[in-house]
Amino acid sequence: MTATLYGIGVGPGDPDLITLKGLRVLEAAPVIAYPAPESGDSLARAIMAPHLDGHHEEIAIRMPMTSDRFPAAAAYDRAARRIGERLDAGLDVAVLCEGDPFFYGSFMFLFGRMADRYPVEVVPGVSSLTACASALDAPLAARNDVLSVVPATLDAASLERRIREVDAVAIIKVGRHFAKVRTVLERLGARTRARYVERATMVNERILRLEDVDPGSVPYFSMILVHARGEAWRV
Amino acid sequence: MTATLYGIGVGPGDPDLITLKGLRVLEAAPVIAYPAPESGDSLARAIMAPHLDGHHEEIAIRMPMTSDRFPAAAAYDRAARRIGERLDAGLDVAVLCEGDPFFYGSFMFLFGRMADRYPVEVVPGVSSLTACASALDAPLAARNDVLSVVPATLDAASLERRIREVDAVAIIKVGRHFAKVRTVLERLGARTRARYVERATMVNERILRLEDVDPGSVPYFSMILVHARGEAWRV
Repeated sequence: MTATLYGIGVGPGDPDLITLKGLRVLEAAPVIAYPAPESGDSLARAIMAPHLDGHHEEIAIRMPMTSDRFPAAAAYDRAARRIGERLDAGLDVAVLCEGDPFFYGSFMFLFGRMADRYPVEVVPGVSSLTACASALDAPLAARNDVLSVVPATLDAASLERRIREVDAVAIIKVGRHFAKVRTVLERLGARTRARYVERATMVNERILRLEDVDPGSVPYFSMILVHARGEAWRV
Repeated sequence: MTATLYGIGVGPGDPDLITLKGLRVLEAAPVIAYPAPESGDSLARAIMAPHLDGHHEEIAIRMPMTSDRFPAAAAYDRAARRIGERLDAGLDVAVLCEGDPFFYGSFMFLFGRMADRYPVEVVPGVSSLTACASALDAPLAARNDVLSVVPATLDAASLERRIREVDAVAIIKVGRHFAKVRTVLERLGARTRARYVERATMVNERILRLEDVDPGSVPYFSMILVHARGEAWRV
C-alpha cells in the first residue's frame, strides 16, 4: 500500500488558525514539504514553526522568481519527483499550504501532477478571504449577495467590469497592482466602501484607508474588500 | 470592563475542522450561543458536541421557519438582548457559527446589532466553499481566475448570467433550487463541468453526478462547483 500525499491548509498566518485535523495530520507525517522562494524562508513553514518539533524530513519547493510559466513548471516537476520518491518509500508527505490548498494555492500544481498516481487528501484551511473579513470587521456577503474573488493582476477595464457587476468583491494578490486598483475604485466611486488589509492575522497585520496606503510598499499578502451594494447584513 | 462577544467559525461539519484558536476561545467562554430551528437541534452545536464538556450556559437562537424578514429580525433582536445581558454581567459569549461567521452566516445579523455596543471578535473558520472543493478533489481557482459565489436563490436568468461571466462558480444554498440550477447548467452546456456535493466533511457527505441527484431531496447544505473555463491548475 502506497503512502498518502496530504495538502494541509495552515490558515492565513496566525499559527493557531490551523485546524485540529490539519495539525494531527502534520504531526503524524514523517515528511513535510512547502513552497519557498529561490533563497530565504518559506512563509507556510514560518506559520507552522511553533508546531514543529524537529522530527520531520523537510522538502523545500523552491520557486524561481519569475512570472514565466516554464521555470515554475520545471520546479513543480522536480518537486513532484522528490515527493513521489518519499511516497514510494512508504512515507506520507504533508504539504504545508498558506490559507487553503485549493483556494488560489500552489498545491494544485502538485495535485495536477500527482493525483492520478498517488492517494491525495486535502485538509481544508481558513482562507485569506474570510481571515481578511474578520480582520476588517466586515462581513463578506449575506443572503442573495453574489461575491466575486478578483485577482488584482487583471487589467483595469476587466477589474472595473468585475467590481461593477456583483454585490461584493474581494480583490486578492494586490501587491504591486495597488495603484491600478485604487484608480479603478475611485472611478467607480467605490473608494469609501473599500477596505484594505495586509498580512491579516499575522503579528504585523495592518489595516489602512486606501488613501493612506503607499503603493510602493504593498505586500503580495494584501486584500481589498469592496461592499458594492452597501451592508445587506444590517437587517 | 465589559465582556467580549466572539463569533467562532466551527467549520463545515467535521468537528476536527475547528481551529486551535476557535476551540480555545470556545472552551474559555462561560456562555455559548448558536442558531437553531424553531424546534429541534442546532447544527452548529451538533458539530461542536464532541468538544463540549457541559460547563457552558447555552443560549439557542431559535429562528422561525419563514423566508419573511420580520419574524427573523425580531428573533435576532431577542437574541441580541439575551446575549447582551450576559455580556453586561461580565460573561464572554461565544456564538458558534457553521463554516465562517462572515461568509453568508447568520452571525452578521447579531454583529450588525451588537458591534457598536460591545467588543466583538471574530475567529475565522473553514468555509463550506473550500471544504466542498476538498471533498470534490477540485481546486476552486488558480492564477488569474475570477471566482464567484452565487446563491441558488437567484432567478434562472441571473444565475445563467453569473455563471457565464466568470471563470469558476460556487453555487451555494442549493436545496430546493436544484432543478432550476441543473436546467441552467444544461442550457449553458456546463453540466459535465459541474460537480455536486452535500454535507461536505460530515459523516453523511455525498458526492453525486448532477443527473443522479433527486431534486426533491437536496439539503440546504449542498453546493455545485462549476469550473467554467476548464482546469487552469493543470500546468
